[in-house]
Amino acid sequence: MIADLVERARGGDPRAVARLITMVESGDQSLPEIAAALGEQAVKAEVIGITGSPGVGKSTTTNELVRALRKRGKRVGVLAVDPSSPFTGGAILGDRVRMQDHATDPGVFIRSMSSRGHLGGLAAATPAAVRVLAGAGCDIVLVETVGVGQAEVEIASLADTTLVLLAPGMGDAIQAVKAGILEIADIFVVNKADRDGADNTYRDIQGMIALGGSGEREPGAWRPRVLKTVSARSEGIDELLDAMTEHRDWLVQTGQLGQRRRLRASAEIEALALAELRSRFSDLPGESLETLAAEVAEGRLDPYAAATKLLSSLD
Amino acid sequence: MIADLVERARGGDPRAVARLITMVESGDQSLPEIAAALGEQAVKAEVIGITGSPGVGKSTTTNELVRALRKRGKRVGVLAVDPSSPFTGGAILGDRVRMQDHATDPGVFIRSMSSRGHLGGLAAATPAAVRVLAGAGCDIVLVETVGVGQAEVEIASLADTTLVLLAPGMGDAIQAVKAGILEIADIFVVNKADRDGADNTYRDIQGMIALGGSGEREPGAWRPRVLKTVSARSEGIDELLDAMTEHRDWLVQTGQLGQRRRLRASAEIEALALAELRSRFSDLPGESLETLAAEVAEGRLDPYAAATKLLSSLD
Repeated sequence: MIADLVERARGGDPRAVARLITMVESGDQSLPEIAAALGEQAVKAEVIGITGSPGVGKSTTTNELVRALRKRGKRVGVLAVDPSSPFTGGAILGDRVRMQDHATDPGVFIRSMSSRGHLGGLAAATPAAVRVLAGAGCDIVLVETVGVGQAEVEIASLADTTLVLLAPGMGDAIQAVKAGILEIADIFVVNKADRDGADNTYRDIQGMIALGGSGEREPGAWRPRVLKTVSARSEGIDELLDAMTEHRDWLVQTGQLGQRRRLRASAEIEALALAELRSRFSDLPGESLETLAAEVAEGRLDPYAAATKLLSSLD
Repeated sequence: MIADLVERARGGDPRAVARLITMVESGDQSLPEIAAALGEQAVKAEVIGITGSPGVGKSTTTNELVRALRKRGKRVGVLAVDPSSPFTGGAILGDRVRMQDHATDPGVFIRSMSSRGHLGGLAAATPAAVRVLAGAGCDIVLVETVGVGQAEVEIASLADTTLVLLAPGMGDAIQAVKAGILEIADIFVVNKADRDGADNTYRDIQGMIALGGSGEREPGAWRPRVLKTVSARSEGIDELLDAMTEHRDWLVQTGQLGQRRRLRASAEIEALALAELRSRFSDLPGESLETLAAEVAEGRLDPYAAATKLLSSLD
């Protein structure tokens, strides 16, 4: 039945794709079977991360990118991920609004995912959903996230190329200085560039890149590009696609693509192994990670002894 | 021999303490034995995280806190942790400068730790070093970190109480807005409060706390305190200690202390289990996590199958 769903997804059946992503999102037991059935095709898509604060125009820009990519004959998947910080809450993104532009296009799959539970769930589900979309024949998968700290960094670790969107007059300097942002962005996009302050924002970012790079950017390293767009009027989108292609070429030529993907795979394997350990351990009568943690917190057990106990659950 | 070192550390021998922390820092094989020998005493210290950007006066404030705590009869440990971002590098903190004030005081242990290798190493070594200091009879351990994004959050997960230091005219608004800062700080300290702009900084932080808390801070939740200090003139330090005590009391009364420590223990146990899995797997002939990750990155293996292989290394 999984094999059948995957077969239909491969043939481009949007309902099969949607079904598989739902299974992935809900942490269905058949995840390993789905992953196995997808095969090599699951890693064939380019993965683009798109992040930025609320209001910078992520959805509009994503829609425009989809349109431009379709014109170039690419099959496109979109995952709109809302990690909704446990502290601040977050709006659930509306599938319907997003889909109306591309609803009848069989070459586009669009899907929202929200964390609902904890971040760990989403962190595991997102790469699995990317694989489903790649397995369904998408040439490129856009993963859009509301940018709030940790989430941005996780997206960067998921994506081959990360776009960070900014808009004038939204405290851009603050966003850009934010620890990590400068490091994760492959391309900065100053959207709403027809507004007052766009040139300042553009110069600020350029300045930060120049500062951040002094004396530490290695020869051949990627220097983040800064582009202006007015996505609502489709301006600058072709230039953005060109910059994405340029970054892709750099990734391939330098071997960075493989390196990034191996790091990502390594982290994912470890996370899955840990989840499995946790669940096996909690199946033991009376024992759970929480029990161990309580004993360690109270000094009745040391963390090394606790880790050994956790691992022994596998025997 | 480990038992002997731990025994001497318990008796307050600074060389035994230093030796144990060096073993811990270098990832010595005897870590589990050290942890076991430390026993329950290892969780008896209050752990205070102190973070903030370079130049806000962390070292001076830490020194003043040590002085004030000594006056109150507390035995104090200080860990100055420099995670030196892999991207930007970082200065190694100078033990000698720090120690000169307290060099002859047997009730104070001061130690710098830098990441040297990767962040994971330091993340594992720091809690182990805190346990050594607690085991050596410290009533309170101050963990001082250069505040750069992720490091701050890790310190927060390590500490019972987290102080975030700011200084006027250093882009404080930016620091405070920075994702996560508002959530991790139990106490904000506006240091160098005799300088121009201190009142603005103070008001900005108060404003952010008010904003951040609207509608989501639960009844009985801790509202971050904001204090002014001039550490270089010992001003405001007693008030800071009072706020720390107040937070401690809140932690105990609400049960948050146990909850924070259980979460911390849980994360530490998992990290240790994972490190052990990794090392056992790399002992298998021809196999390593890197090999698995490469196969996954290239689509020859799916991540679930890889995780299963990793776990099977335990059998």
